[in-house]
This record gives sequence, C-alpha cells and structure tokens, in this order.
Amino acid sequence: MKLTKEQKQEIVDQQSQKNETKRVTSPELEKILYEALPVLDHGFVRVVDYMGDDTSIVQSARVSYGKGTKKVSTDEGLIKYLMRHWHSTPFEMCEIKYHVKLPIFIARQWIRHRTANVNEYSARYSILDKEFYIPSKDQLSAQSNTNRQGRGELITGEQADEVLKILKNDATRTYDNYEKMLNERYDGSTIDSSKTGLARELARMNLTLNSYTQWYWKTDLLNLLNFLFLRADSHAQYEIRVYAETMLETVKKWVPITHAAFLDYRVGAVHVSAKGKKVIQLMAKGEKVTHDNSGLSKREWNELMNSFGFNEKII
Amino acid sequence: MKLTKEQKQEIVDQQSQKNETKRVTSPELEKILYEALPVLDHGFVRVVDYMGDDTSIVQSARVSYGKGTKKVSTDEGLIKYLMRHWHSTPFEMCEIKYHVKLPIFIARQWIRHRTANVNEYSARYSILDKEFYIPSKDQLSAQSNTNRQGRGELITGEQADEVLKILKNDATRTYDNYEKMLNERYDGSTIDSSKTGLARELARMNLTLNSYTQWYWKTDLLNLLNFLFLRADSHAQYEIRVYAETMLETVKKWVPITHAAFLDYRVGAVHVSAKGKKVIQLMAKGEKVTHDNSGLSKREWNELMNSFGFNEKII
Amino acid sequence: MKLTKEQKQEIVDQQSQKNETKRVTSPELEKILYEALPVLDHGFVRVVDYMGDDTSIVQSARVSYGKGTKKVSTDEGLIKYLMRHWHSTPFEMCEIKYHVKLPIFIARQWIRHRTANVNEYSARYSILDKEFYIPSKDQLSAQSNTNRQGRGELITGEQADEVLKILKNDATRTYDNYEKMLNERYDGSTIDSSKTGLARELARMNLTLNSYTQWYWKTDLLNLLNFLFLRADSHAQYEIRVYAETMLETVKKWVPITHAAFLDYRVGAVHVSAKGKKVIQLMAKGEKVTHDNSGLSKREWNELMNSFGFNEKII
Amino acid sequence: MKLTKEQKQEIVDQQSQKNETKRVTSPELEKILYEALPVLDHGFVRVVDYMGDDTSIVQSARVSYGKGTKKVSTDEGLIKYLMRHWHSTPFEMCEIKYHVKLPIFIARQWIRHRTANVNEYSARYSILDKEFYIPSKDQLSAQSNTNRQGRGELITGEQADEVLKILKNDATRTYDNYEKMLNERYDGSTIDSSKTGLARELARMNLTLNSYTQWYWKTDLLNLLNFLFLRADSHAQYEIRVYAETMLETVKKWVPITHAAFLDYRVGAVHVSAKGKKVIQLMAKGEKVTHDNSGLSKREWNELMNSFGFNEKII
Repeated sequence: MKLTKEQKQEIVDQQSQKNETKRVTSPELEKILYEALPVLDHGFVRVVDYMGDDTSIVQSARVSYGKGTKKVSTDEGLIKYLMRHWHSTPFEMCEIKYHVKLPIFIARQWIRHRTANVNEYSARYSILDKEFYIPSKDQLSAQSNTNRQGRGELITGEQADEVLKILKNDATRTYDNYEKMLNERYDGSTIDSSKTGLARELARMNLTLNSYTQWYWKTDLLNLLNFLFLRADSHAQYEIRVYAETMLETVKKWVPITHAAFLDYRVGAVHVSAKGKKVIQLMAKGEKVTHDNSGLSKREWNELMNSFGFNEKII
Repeated sequence: MKLTKEQKQEIVDQQSQKNETKRVTSPELEKILYEALPVLDHGFVRVVDYMGDDTSIVQSARVSYGKGTKKVSTDEGLIKYLMRHWHSTPFEMCEIKYHVKLPIFIARQWIRHRTANVNEYSARYSILDKEFYIPSKDQLSAQSNTNRQGRGELITGEQADEVLKILKNDATRTYDNYEKMLNERYDGSTIDSSKTGLARELARMNLTLNSYTQWYWKTDLLNLLNFLFLRADSHAQYEIRVYAETMLETVKKWVPITHAAFLDYRVGAVHVSAKGKKVIQLMAKGEKVTHDNSGLSKREWNELMNSFGFNEKII
Repeated sequence: MKLTKEQKQEIVDQQSQKNETKRVTSPELEKILYEALPVLDHGFVRVVDYMGDDTSIVQSARVSYGKGTKKVSTDEGLIKYLMRHWHSTPFEMCEIKYHVKLPIFIARQWIRHRTANVNEYSARYSILDKEFYIPSKDQLSAQSNTNRQGRGELITGEQADEVLKILKNDATRTYDNYEKMLNERYDGSTIDSSKTGLARELARMNLTLNSYTQWYWKTDLLNLLNFLFLRADSHAQYEIRVYAETMLETVKKWVPITHAAFLDYRVGAVHVSAKGKKVIQLMAKGEKVTHDNSGLSKREWNELMNSFGFNEKII
Repeated sequence: MKLTKEQKQEIVDQQSQKNETKRVTSPELEKILYEALPVLDHGFVRVVDYMGDDTSIVQSARVSYGKGTKKVSTDEGLIKYLMRHWHSTPFEMCEIKYHVKLPIFIARQWIRHRTANVNEYSARYSILDKEFYIPSKDQLSAQSNTNRQGRGELITGEQADEVLKILKNDATRTYDNYEKMLNERYDGSTIDSSKTGLARELARMNLTLNSYTQWYWKTDLLNLLNFLFLRADSHAQYEIRVYAETMLETVKKWVPITHAAFLDYRVGAVHVSAKGKKVIQLMAKGEKVTHDNSGLSKREWNELMNSFGFNEKII
C-alpha cells in the first residue's frame, strides 16, 4: 500500500484533531481512527467515523425491556443474552463508517450487502488510479475439483509465472489505452493537446476488473456482523476475506464485549438441522450412527461430521 | 412534560460527560445533547447520539467525484448543489439517534417510515407509564368537510368540555383496569398479594391509543429529511408535526448548511406537473390562462394556483 | 369471524375469476386464493396475490451459478442445498400478498418486520369496525414467574370472569364514546345532526389496543420465512403465533419443497455456540460432561440440554 | 443481440405456457412476457414474471382509506391523485421481475438502487460469455467541457477508428488470456489437458468492464419508477438509459394508467425551489426579473430558465 503525500497529510491532519464531546467514545478505536490498515497489494481499510459503543447496545435494550432487564446484572451478561437469542435491534444502535480501497471485482461482491450506505469514487467524473491487484504467488490457486466456487491446489512454476505476467501485462496495457482514449494521464496531464479525449464514462469500460476503486461504506453493527460472518468465513473468497478480517479487528477495538459474543455465538457456532439433531442425540446416548441409518444425504452427513470434527466422513 | 427524578439524574450524568475524540463534532448540537425537549403534554424528544456534520457530506461527495468536485469552491456551494440535484448518498453519511416519548397512535404513524432503527419500550416486559395524551382546547377540531383526512373548525363550549372529559375518563378507567388485571400498580406495588396478575402481553390490550410509549429511533440524515419533509408539513397531523418541528430545530443546530438548503429546495419548493408547466409558461408570457383552457382538473388547477399564491382559485 | 355481505360478495367475485396467463402458477395455492382463513375471534388471513413458485427459486439459482448447478440433478436437491447453506437471494424471487385483519396491539408487533410493503386501513379517513379481540378462557394466562415476557399458569374462576368483563366493558365503552365524539356511528349514521363531530384523527385515540385493524401486507418469500421463523415459534406471543401458523400452511401450499426444507433446516434446527459445541463433542465421545466443567453459564447449559432434549437441566 | 439455440428454445417453451389463474392479469404485458427485447449490441431485457396491475394499486388504496375513497369515482382519478400527492405504498403493491443482460460497468451503476432483489450470474462458478459492449460510432462522444459527468461532441474520423480498435482488441485479448488462465474455453472445452486451470474467481479479474453479465432483477413498481425517473432521464449515461427506456415501455403495457400519471407528474414535471418560486411569481405578474435581482446563483438561474424553456440564460 502506497499512499500519496496528499493522503498521508490528510490522515495526519485528521488524527491530530482533539475535539471535546458529550457522546460516548471508544478509546481503543480512537487510537486507530483514520489510520490506513493495509490489505492486499494496494488496498486499505480506514475507520473514519463511528457512533456508540458496547454501552449503547445495553442502553437500548434497557429502554425496550424497561425494568425487566434490571435482573441481568452486568452489561456483558446482557449483551451475551441478546446475541444468543438473536435480538437484532439493539445492535443496530451502533454505526461505523469505513473508507476502503479495493479491487473492482471484490467491490462487486461487497455491494451485494444492501443494508449499508455507500459513496464510491466515480469514474464518470474522475480518472481511476493506476493500480491493479496482482495476487501474490501463494494465492495462485487452481479451480477446485470438489467445490464449484472454491480454490484447489496452488499453481506453481512456469504456469504461475505466466499467469502473473498475463495479469500485469493486460492490466497495464488496458490502462495505457484508457489514458490514450481519455487523451489524459492519471496525473492530469494532457497527452495530445490537438485532440479531445473520449468521455470518461465510456473510456473506463476498457479497464480490467482488478483495477482499484474506493468508497466510503457506512453500516450499523448488526449488518456489519452479518457481513463479517459471511465474508470472514473460510468459504469466502480470499480477496474479500482479508478485508473482513481486518475489519473484524476494528470491531474488537470498538465493541469488545460484542466481539467476544459474536465469536462464541456466531463465528464458532454450529447450525444443526432437525435430522442432524437426531443423529447427535443418538451419538450422545452412545449409540452407533452411520450414514446409512442417519436419514441424511451423503453431503449432509459429511457436513455434520465436519462441523463437529468427528472422523466419520464418507466418500 | 414531567421527568422522574431518575430521568433527570440520568440527563445530568450524560450531560456532564467530557470525552476527547478525533471525530468531527457539531458544537451547537453538543449544547443540547441529551436534553429533553418538551412536545405535547407529556412527550419529549432528546438527541442522544450523532455521527458526522456538514463536512462529512462534503467529504463523501468529494470521494465520489474525486478531483471533479474541486471546482465547487465552498462547502456550502457543494451541499446546495447536491440537494438541488437530488444526490442522496452523501446525506446518508450522517447519522442521528433520538430518544422520543410519544402517544401510541402517533407512534403507529411514525413507524411507517421503515428506513430507521428502533428500540421501543415493550409492554410485554414492563408496565407502561400512567400518562395519556389529552389535546389542549385549541386542538379540538371537527372533521373537515373538504379534506377527508383533515381538521376543520374548532369545537368549543360544552361539546369541547365533553370530549375532554371522555378522553380523560376513558384513559384513566382503562388504565386503572389495566393495573387491576396486572394486579400491580405502575409504581411496581402489588394490589392483592393473594392473586397472580394477568400476563403483561395481554393486559396491555386494554389501554387506549393515547397512552404514551417511548423509543430510541436512529436514522441517517437523508431519511430524517424525508421524514421531516412529510411530517413537518402543514398537511401532517398536528400531533406528529410538533415532534417533526422540534426535530427540525435539532437539524438546524447539527448541520446548518444542509438545513438551509433543505428549506430552500424541499420545504419551500413547488412541484409542477407537465401540464401545470404549460400553464406557468403561458402566464409568464403575459397570456391569460383560465381553468377552462388549462387542461387541468379543477382540483389540479386549485392546487397549482395555491402553490404559487395566485388568486385564481375556482369552486 | 363474521364477514359482511359486501366482503363475502367480493370474495366470491374474486374467486370466480378465470384468467389465462403464461406465468407459473401454484395450483394448490390457487384453490384457497382470496379465501378468508379465520384467526382469533374476528381476524382473518387471506392470500390475495402471489408471484412465482418453487421452480422460480431454482431458475434464479441456475442463472447465478450458470452451468455450475447442472450437477445438482433435482429441484428438490437444489432448494435443500440453498436453504442449508443460507443462500438468500433465490428465495427473494417469490412474492406474496396477504390481506390480514388483526388487533392493533398485534399489528404493532408485526410492523417491526420492516422488509415488507404495507397498506393499512386508516382511522384518519374512516371509522374503524366495532370489533375487539377478547381472549378465549384458555388463553387467560398469568404473567410467568420465570420468563419476563411469557405467560404462566391459567387464570380461572372469578378472576377470569372479571378480566373478561373488564376487557369487554372497556372496549365497548371507549368505542361508544368514540362514536359519540365523532357524532357518527360505525354504520355511517349521524348521531346528532345539530352538531359537528370531532376529527377522526383525534377521536381514534380513545380506542383500546384490542380494536381490530386490517392491512394488505406484501413480502418476498425470504422475509416471510424470517417472519414465520420468529412468529410461529413457541416463544412468540400466542396472538401473533396463530396468524403465523395459518400463514405457514399457505406457504406449504404455495412452495411445498421450500416449506419442507424450512422445517428441517430452520424450524426444527438447533444453533450451538462454540462453547456448546465442545460439550456436544465430549458427550458424543461418551465422556461425562456436567454444568460444572462445561464452561457454560447455568442458563446456557439449560438451553443447550433443552434444545437436544437431554435430561440434564440444573436449577 | 444473438441468442443461443438453447435460449431461444427456453423462450419458446415459456411463451407456450397456458395456465389458468384467479389472479389479476395484464393482457398487454402477457403478450411480450419472456420475450428478449434487444438493448445495445448484445444486451436484452425480458419481463419474466409480474404481480398485480393498475387495479391492485386502487384496491390497496381503498383498503387504506376505506369508505373515504368512494368519492373518487374512477380508478384513473384515484391513481392520478395518489401520484400527485406522492402516496407511495399503493404503488409498492405491484411487483415485476426482469431478466437483463448488460455490460458490467452498467451493472455497477444499476446495482446502486438497493431496494430490489438480484440474482446475478456468478463468474466464481461459471465462465462468462465471450461478449463485450462496443459502442456504435454515433455514441463515441468526447468528455464534455461544461458538465463533468457528461458527453460532449462526437469523436469522428481516425480518432474514432482508433478508439473502436482499442476497445475491441483489448476486450478480445484479455478474454483470450482469461480462457488461457482458466485452461478452458467459453464453450467448456479444455485447452491443455496436461494442466489445471486457475480458479475462476481469480481469472475473471482479467476481464474488461465492458464484458456482459446477466441477472434476474425484481422490484416493486414504486422503486421501479424511481429507477426509471433517474435512469430514463436525459442526464443518465446513454448505456443505462437505453435499458430504462425499454423498461418504461414494458411499464406502459403493464400499468397504463400509472404510466400516464408518471409521465405527467414525474418525468415531465418541474421542481422549483423557494427562491425560484418568487421569480416565477413576479414573472407571472408581468414584472421584469433578471438574474441580478433574482437572488439566484448563475447556475440556479439558468437551470430555472431552462426548465421552463424561457430564453433568459446568462453566461
């Protein structure tokens, strides 16, 4: 991640602010506020604003349940209770805003989470940065044979070199042609002053999907956790997962109690179907259950065994 | 509005906080943060948290449009431009949270604005306050003859006294019976220790719709302005309009530039249909236009004349 | 449930329609289309329109995954896979519209599900029906001692009679006074032609929360299932659960494959926290686990034992 | 637009369905149901399902307003009234589903309309079609000098030829390299059976933004009209406008009364600010108003004059 001089100065300026407020603050999050946390080769995640902390969740819940919540003595106890019983609205009472720089093909996955506010850099108005995502060698995986949307073995050697060469060359060449059609370089300089340039809203179509874009992305804590649950998961594509993992660290600083409850009741949790429940019940009674008498499909059986770490997979 | 000793203490405690933050702050809004602004006879509005200010809108817009916005030299110019051209996402970048106490029949109107986060006091858990909205005498209007959802002339004299008496008596009697069925008074004391009380989730059905409830209500600035546009309007029911008007004052303190643009381009603006536009075009050319040659229905004609303050209404 | 002559005629008219369409249809749902399915004493649920069926879900999934889905040979297999892996968007491709008559205090719970379209009967415009929900005797439960939002033992005998008398009397008296203030009866007749009536938007505040309202409620299948998961659950308040149960039957007629998958993977499923998972792992290995060495709170322990039907609850 | 034999057969099959239903139908829309309406060089729009028609809007409004709407005698009168007064919920009662094929850079604009359900073809699972959008010569506009997001004069001659050559070559070359990295051609054939291919979720990043994708897009009528208002507008980018215009024609077939009201009260309407209103008032009184005494900025003045077609622009 390389920031421009301008960007570095902006961050320094923002971080040197000292304002007084009657609002609640999150001291650990304040420490990294505005900081550009590097992700992938040119991307970053920055927390640029937030509202509320763990106590805001508690306060909202207590408004809902009135005197009814007095018996849950601690904030931690109440937050765990709310998370365990899928109470949603108290977690909507906290809000966070990120500034993210990310490749376009990842932005297209990300934007499918609709319950968020977004301001994206517009290539109709301005020229995109000359930066493309090129995977590192340890991420050059082949298509998985078993999982239609997953990655399999690493591609290595000459084939790997060739892939990297293609990605670099094609991104560079299409960007150069983008500038040529615009008749303007990314630094704003004109190429041929005797010509006009193609409209930006058209020229951008020549760029490859690993070009970087950036946006402000604002959401409430509930929807952020839903996003992180799906995108910090091992089944998520690596290139979005690294963003989610970085953001999960910022959640830990922001609302540490909620973060711990999220790990226990969501990230590390297991969902067992009605049929799967019967299998578990029998196993706990010491009875022998096999795929044959389980009533589960092969795939369901393997997923169940896998989720509890039982060595009973079948092929 | 009468606050309990507990509530008053909570407000004092919240207002005495002095936290340091690197976030932007809104100094005028900070001055009234947590304060209970009275509305109707027992209701209030309190701003309990916020995120962002006018500069946050500008900052988001500049991320979107990149170097493209540099030419609009001032923040005010840019915010006015965004408002005039119906740009929506920059205004979503600010967030505010209110604590509101309001009659249930107004809460039912309010909740129809879906793009907000809500935590309402739950009468399944806790006993509702013994407070009902009773209109003041200058609000006791008859049903309008001309507008099916509006108010007409004031009801006065004996009939007014009777209405007020009914409202007070019925609210009091149903509340007393609510306590009786609960076998518990609003202050938590038991009525008859030899009996159990009816479940709260059932007993509440005996209350009248002017009972007060309360909630935390959180929304972004764009959706807040949409709410205020409809509810601070003269066609809105008086009892919700007074809440909207109080909130509009908090918007003025929070984001003064946006507030001014909102008054000019939304609140005071006029929407003219394609057919209405032709009428205005002719009038501006000095031509005589009447309802007969306007192509408008009688209702449309009157609405158009009215919106520009022209004395050309027909009956 | 008593329908007016007008309503009965409307239903007969709607049901006698025979239109030809190229859209997919759901033959079992067509059979009960428009029919008023009775709920509570005066309420009902009617399916008044729908879009799509089980094959629409499959079709959308196949567009997303392209040739990738060809290997899942059957529609049933694919729908089960989608449900098991929490795919959401294919289930959003079906839409349904209900006409519901329900008590206001239940409408207030229901409306908290925001992702739906609603048109409610407006008491600003029109007079509400003279109908109130009065619980049947087998629903007159006391407040639970153990669950702050639940019901406990039945209230019987004289106390039950008194509760029912209060509910009936108070609803009737406040309704009579509502008519008096309006100077108009529910059938449209004027009470005293020498007077004007109070504005409807004001008079309605005198009604009790068990008054019936009605609305059109339209949502997609995904959000409907989320609603039913929460509201057809045994922890939901009885008065909303009976609506949810009736609607669940309409889902069975509409999208039978999805309905079966929903029962297996949602309704009958168990969610186990990371800590709970360790307990289950040990139990399945035949090891003795007790609350003491489980790392769970007492409440969590009991919930876990309960969810699998193990007789290991502690007090 | 070139459909595959498979796609053509699917359309024929869908169109040959004849189902009987008690639901309302829209006869004019039925005629073009499933048909692929061509847009741009390889794109299309197909209506694949719908729910409701003009009468559904009326029916919902009548549920809301009860007997209050009886006086508006015709469906047309009521729909016009609802549109004019910005009633929103009745228009949410109709739903439509489109199948759209479109270039990725347009899909990125389109998806910013969040209140819709989407299933997009996934390039993580399957190989994208070998089709790119190449503008026709009459769309090769230069960047506008006056409007930062608009198009200016046409680019012609050699420069136009060069632009087209670049777009074609770069799209073709990056697609060829996409196949090479996948080690698989778009028709599913393997390139080199001694190699494994790069994961699809990675290889796709090499494609240019004018590659075609496709999706199912479902929304209610209110949100569809909001989309069309913005995207069928002359300020919208040409490449999304042509989709919007095609969809607007399907709306005309589906809900003709609503379509007419939309043209009058939205598309052809003018929004006048509070300050602008004063200018119009003076003009209608025959007074001379100039920019100098108008209180408007130069830009506002020109926009106002322009919106009414007055020849009073200043520079």
